[in-house]
Amino acid sequence: MRIQLYDTTLRDGSQGEGVNFSLQDKLLITSMLDELGFDFIEGGFPASNEKDSEYFQRVAEGVPELHGGGTRPLANAKVVAFGMTRRKGIAASEDQGLQALVKSKAPVCTVVGKTWDLHVTEVLRVSLEENLAMIRDSIAYLKSEGRTVFYDAEHFFDGYQANPDYATKTIRAAIEGGVDMVIFCDTNGGSLPEKIAATIDSIRPHVTVPFGIHCHNDCEVAVANSLKAVDSGAVQVQGTINGIGERCGNADLVSVAANLALKKGRQVLAEGGVGRLTEISRYVYELANMNFRNGQPFVGRSAFAHKGGMHVHAVNRIAHSYEHIDPAVVGNERRILVSELSGRSNIMAKTTKFNLGDDNALMKRILDRVVELEAEGYQFEAAEASFDLLVKKEIGQYEPKFRRLHYHVVVQMDASGLDSPGARPALPMTQATVKVQVGNRIELVAGEGDGPVNALDNALRKALVPAYPQLSTMRLVDYKVRVINSTEGTAAKVRVVIESADDQDVWSTIGVSENVIEASWQALADAIDYKLLKDNGQLT
Amino acid sequence: MRIQLYDTTLRDGSQGEGVNFSLQDKLLITSMLDELGFDFIEGGFPASNEKDSEYFQRVAEGVPELHGGGTRPLANAKVVAFGMTRRKGIAASEDQGLQALVKSKAPVCTVVGKTWDLHVTEVLRVSLEENLAMIRDSIAYLKSEGRTVFYDAEHFFDGYQANPDYATKTIRAAIEGGVDMVIFCDTNGGSLPEKIAATIDSIRPHVTVPFGIHCHNDCEVAVANSLKAVDSGAVQVQGTINGIGERCGNADLVSVAANLALKKGRQVLAEGGVGRLTEISRYVYELANMNFRNGQPFVGRSAFAHKGGMHVHAVNRIAHSYEHIDPAVVGNERRILVSELSGRSNIMAKTTKFNLGDDNALMKRILDRVVELEAEGYQFEAAEASFDLLVKKEIGQYEPKFRRLHYHVVVQMDASGLDSPGARPALPMTQATVKVQVGNRIELVAGEGDGPVNALDNALRKALVPAYPQLSTMRLVDYKVRVINSTEGTAAKVRVVIESADDQDVWSTIGVSENVIEASWQALADAIDYKLLKDNGQLT
Repeated sequence: MRIQLYDTTLRDGSQGEGVNFSLQDKLLITSMLDELGFDFIEGGFPASNEKDSEYFQRVAEGVPELHGGGTRPLANAKVVAFGMTRRKGIAASEDQGLQALVKSKAPVCTVVGKTWDLHVTEVLRVSLEENLAMIRDSIAYLKSEGRTVFYDAEHFFDGYQANPDYATKTIRAAIEGGVDMVIFCDTNGGSLPEKIAATIDSIRPHVTVPFGIHCHNDCEVAVANSLKAVDSGAVQVQGTINGIGERCGNADLVSVAANLALKKGRQVLAEGGVGRLTEISRYVYELANMNFRNGQPFVGRSAFAHKGGMHVHAVNRIAHSYEHIDPAVVGNERRILVSELSGRSNIMAKTTKFNLGDDNALMKRILDRVVELEAEGYQFEAAEASFDLLVKKEIGQYEPKFRRLHYHVVVQMDASGLDSPGARPALPMTQATVKVQVGNRIELVAGEGDGPVNALDNALRKALVPAYPQLSTMRLVDYKVRVINSTEGTAAKVRVVIESADDQDVWSTIGVSENVIEASWQALADAIDYKLLKDNGQLT
Repeated sequence: MRIQLYDTTLRDGSQGEGVNFSLQDKLLITSMLDELGFDFIEGGFPASNEKDSEYFQRVAEGVPELHGGGTRPLANAKVVAFGMTRRKGIAASEDQGLQALVKSKAPVCTVVGKTWDLHVTEVLRVSLEENLAMIRDSIAYLKSEGRTVFYDAEHFFDGYQANPDYATKTIRAAIEGGVDMVIFCDTNGGSLPEKIAATIDSIRPHVTVPFGIHCHNDCEVAVANSLKAVDSGAVQVQGTINGIGERCGNADLVSVAANLALKKGRQVLAEGGVGRLTEISRYVYELANMNFRNGQPFVGRSAFAHKGGMHVHAVNRIAHSYEHIDPAVVGNERRILVSELSGRSNIMAKTTKFNLGDDNALMKRILDRVVELEAEGYQFEAAEASFDLLVKKEIGQYEPKFRRLHYHVVVQMDASGLDSPGARPALPMTQATVKVQVGNRIELVAGEGDGPVNALDNALRKALVPAYPQLSTMRLVDYKVRVINSTEGTAAKVRVVIESADDQDVWSTIGVSENVIEASWQALADAIDYKLLKDNGQLT
């Protein structure tokens, strides 16, 4: 049977610390969720702010096409507006929040209401009876306006534990109001799977409509709880892409969808949707300006990465011996990491693209070089482009595209900003000069920057772009500094890893030195070398 | 009943992408795990590398005290050496890997062996019978050497599914060898809780020794799987701090411990151990130089952060209405985001040593300044000396001990080291000049160093020691750089945290800037300021 996936990335997810989507972000995410075949997209809380009301108008006019500039109607998903039960003592039709739901013209409305008697009397401060009427009336009003209505039973599991009779009455009130589906919410995220199953089993005789589940991850079991609820009869799972959301986040719909489809044989999403889970995960991180979680189940960059030599050896023989699924099924890929722990078989796997054959002596030489450099602090698993360059050097196919003759970096700062206590100092004057040989020409250029590495980067590009105009399409996307032997204080060694990109690819390079400027130079130079070799087709 | 926690952060955790512990890191983590009351600490794989063998020698001599410079014997934990079953066709006593376990003198040895017939015949390439003998012999040999022996049944759940008879035989072989405990491993992390429970129920009649569980998080259910196994009779849970480990990581022992203690009423850790889970989580992240996961269950910075206005309102009325546990129980704290009211009591708590009384306006001013600086990237929880200086400034008791007039840092590098491929470049010439005013005197000095910050540090001390000879007892013990907004590439902001020490104290200071030199200057200047105020008795 099909399990409905209800995405609330744009509403509950945006409660996460540091999460903030623009209207355009929300429309783009809606479009991709729809392409993958999510059933419902909770787009916002129209009573709470302008952006959310505008969102519903815009979706009604069409969502942006992800490739190409037009708009299109939703193909798979229904958009959902979120709101609360009416305020106390007024008719539902006069409640501004409920009116906003109607005005949003969303075909589906989700109304959240109180299940836990403590919340009714102590937080909401209404009588237990009035709360039941608020639930019943709000749903009946939205039904009378022709909407599909879902009821989010807030704190359902805690409320049921505290007072099962009253919690049951709230669910009955929703059903009396004509609700289409009841959603059991573990709002505080404090329940374990056995509590989810036992509570659902206990209420089930009273639930004459379909029901769904909404979990939070405060005990690190939101995915397990969601799957358990499906076992107990839930037909809808609510959650967010990547599990973003308040506190520890919501159930991660990426993992939920993959587990339902691949482990439990349930039908979810549209044809091909599961194969795009990696894509949507990264897309949402990009739009939310959040870093990927490398270890994220199913879709993380490390989810199918193999490091230990024994594992790699086995993976090469029989893939599924060390992989629980084929990474391609969720749109992800296998990665073989190079490190001192790895053996010759790792190196062999990493270098297949160079067609080196079975040259054992060469493999040993490459491995020895990796071990030697890793002892100095390099780490090639995070810098695959630098590893490729190392291989090119070892097989004698490396020809430098430019030669450093000299660099000179100055950082100079006066007393500015220090006189008024608490004032923020200005930025120092920062300049770099770089002298490089490119073919027969010698380029001497200067650059400025926010910091010394930025200045060096700017100068180096300026020197090389005349000879290699393709470098203007290359940009730095990430810059990481790590102190390796930090017990040496400011004389410690640092490891710099740079991630670069052009229109087609993303690649990482590394540098290590006691001097952060020199470590950065190494990583910058490798990044440029790699780009130039790549564009020349010299990396295969 | 007590559930044993078996930590493998230092062995399986170090298989994680980008994870690399120094020997000293491993000893410090061992010391803290022991303080909290973890039962077993798997310290390494002595056959695989030198560092791991040395670790066992050092632990036998005593682990470092976390506060104070001495060493002490382990108080709660037993250290475990990890290895594999003997190679085919030789006696266990002649297997170098098993000999390394014996030589490690670790009181407990864990041996991993094959359960899945496919792995035996296709990866290991030995007969099914020989594998059983390898398991039996290896364990018997270690038992004859007087060790406690655990058997990690690799791929147990997948192997049992593929060939239950053979999988059962491998477990029986371990028991025949005299094993003390069998650990069922979900090595590929592909099992859901129902498979864990059904498989354990099925094998249980054959298991006449206690058993444990070892899960990986590839389906995002490692914690749920571990808890399910405990429900099914497991007496030991293996995992890592923060769930670090290969691919998607291991079961997070922090969440496992908190769930067992707080949700399932099981006894784990030593008295007070659960209350230090937040501390150990952050300590391991720091030593691994990994970023905290803000949304991490129980111990993340956002785990008890409240953003929505409604939630905040309710939390202020009845804490447990929106919190599944009291954050203090795991050593964490509630955070009300962007709300001055909640923060003021925090500031009050942090400034008690200054005897500021109930000056609400002052508390508000300090809080405003903290909020403002944290928005720029400062983090005072990691830099309490900088926070103390901030308070001194706000209460008008700060008098600068020196005044920066100017600094100038030069890093200059030629083509050296680049001509012979693979040669390591020399260090650049690095000089700093510093001009400071100390009282009525102006000091202009120059210094050299391995890198620009080291040069600046050397120059600044040289300038100040004539006036403040006590600075010669001060040393830098740690220097950390973190990129804050890494999406800006080399123009990103960096946060520098410096840890300094003298004969009595250790203190941390912070600086933030787009320029790493300026951020370092701020942290260095604060460190020196703090030392001078402290020695003058001006910090109470």
